[in-house]
Amino acid sequence: MKREKGKVILIGAGPGDEGLITVKGKAWLESADVVIYDHLANKNLNQFAKSDAEIIYAGKISGQATLTQDQINSLLVDKALEGKIVVRLKGGDPFIFGRGGEEVQFLKEAGISFAIVPGVTSPVGVSAYAGIPLTHRDFASSLSIITGSFGKDKDDFQIDWDKLATSKGTLVFLMGARKLDYIVEQLLSYGKSPSTPIAIIQWGTTPKQKTWTGTLSTIKNIINKEIIYPPALTIIGEVVKLKKSVDWFEQLPLFGKNIVLTRPQDESVYLSDLLRNKGASPILFP
Amino acid sequence: MKREKGKVILIGAGPGDEGLITVKGKAWLESADVVIYDHLANKNLNQFAKSDAEIIYAGKISGQATLTQDQINSLLVDKALEGKIVVRLKGGDPFIFGRGGEEVQFLKEAGISFAIVPGVTSPVGVSAYAGIPLTHRDFASSLSIITGSFGKDKDDFQIDWDKLATSKGTLVFLMGARKLDYIVEQLLSYGKSPSTPIAIIQWGTTPKQKTWTGTLSTIKNIINKEIIYPPALTIIGEVVKLKKSVDWFEQLPLFGKNIVLTRPQDESVYLSDLLRNKGASPILFP
Repeated sequence: MKREKGKVILIGAGPGDEGLITVKGKAWLESADVVIYDHLANKNLNQFAKSDAEIIYAGKISGQATLTQDQINSLLVDKALEGKIVVRLKGGDPFIFGRGGEEVQFLKEAGISFAIVPGVTSPVGVSAYAGIPLTHRDFASSLSIITGSFGKDKDDFQIDWDKLATSKGTLVFLMGARKLDYIVEQLLSYGKSPSTPIAIIQWGTTPKQKTWTGTLSTIKNIINKEIIYPPALTIIGEVVKLKKSVDWFEQLPLFGKNIVLTRPQDESVYLSDLLRNKGASPILFP
Repeated sequence: MKREKGKVILIGAGPGDEGLITVKGKAWLESADVVIYDHLANKNLNQFAKSDAEIIYAGKISGQATLTQDQINSLLVDKALEGKIVVRLKGGDPFIFGRGGEEVQFLKEAGISFAIVPGVTSPVGVSAYAGIPLTHRDFASSLSIITGSFGKDKDDFQIDWDKLATSKGTLVFLMGARKLDYIVEQLLSYGKSPSTPIAIIQWGTTPKQKTWTGTLSTIKNIINKEIIYPPALTIIGEVVKLKKSVDWFEQLPLFGKNIVLTRPQDESVYLSDLLRNKGASPILFP
């Protein structure tokens, strides 16, 4: 049977927990000939691909991109022109600060068929696992998601600091940990109350999840001696106070525990799910 | 084997397309003893439940809630106390304007175990299927999601109209169609440019999806004679202009077509997926 022309499927892999990929995303992964995945996509998801699928890493190694955006765009087109089903697997959702829009524009100009499978975006997934309901109606009627890809050195004219500082809604900064000092400084200087609650969540939705909470005035001292590795997310607003009445994932009986499984594969898959639902990180051995 | 105490799992069903539930959400549905689902959760998802699972509708019939929030809360607790696995299936994501936070607080106070399975929130899923990348970095460095549950008759002190009107980011109003006139009026009166692009998307991610686009000054006339039924979503910002260079779902060869399948079930499931990926709405018969 002659394969029709190839296509590219952009899939949101979700925020970390591999169970948070969508059913449709998983089905496309299973039929993929090529998988091009990002640093923030859980690489365990590649196990769903066929054994002869070509798996290409397009993330960073030691801070250096393995492929430029132009190279990724060309690769997507070239593989599709070979008649292949190409899955582009991105962390979170492809359209929420994921450059999915740019990749799709390139595909469309090149005449390549494509589809988008949206995903659980990290602000939504990570906050749920951190026990922080971003829009609890007693505390917030809006939610703003802001990219953390800016800085004193860069042109950040697009960040409306004055409006963010005076907004009554919840603010979420993506990848904001490295810019935390600057974000807090800016919000305070534009008039946000120093008592505003803040949470920083590292490796959210995974067994390595770690949360720090405080206020705009205390958070600097709280995380003073910590090194916060990406991916991390910063939530600012009154809803952070609800964590104690909503928290669940970090309270699971096996949260954060690594558990090695040496059973036959069939049993291990079943046990892995059980362990994950209790917060543990199952490690299959051998 | 004595069943341990029951628990409640809050699951985001995604924005409409049943393929957008997560793998983890589907697995919990398959093990549920009781499913309590909302109006906006795709009811086809209930097919994943066991044949003897109790399925309870907690949405609205003719605009009237079948169950009050207090009744839903009590039902969740009662069923869990019977030792059952109770799935609470909500449209989109449970924590994004879904009252999931309130339900969880109630469960926690009652000492009931619970877990949250986040979902594809409708702003993310619907915009992807509408071909509008909400945060394309050439046009937006922030995204604000605002509930449409407010109005001239209600107290809308929490809506920062002045900040929304002058924000350079993308705005998404949930369920904003019924309040469209008011939203547009407010934004214009607070200084938003009348040429700002706007899109309204009805029944997003389903084969019935319909999109209207215009500007703040033209949209009123464009939808003048239309009745927009919920669920609908309103996107405001420069990114709406990208639809023509990103659009895909509404361009699929069978988009919006109802196709009746009379094959045996095994074949039908396979064909259904194929048809859905081409934009059609498969109807199984008999």
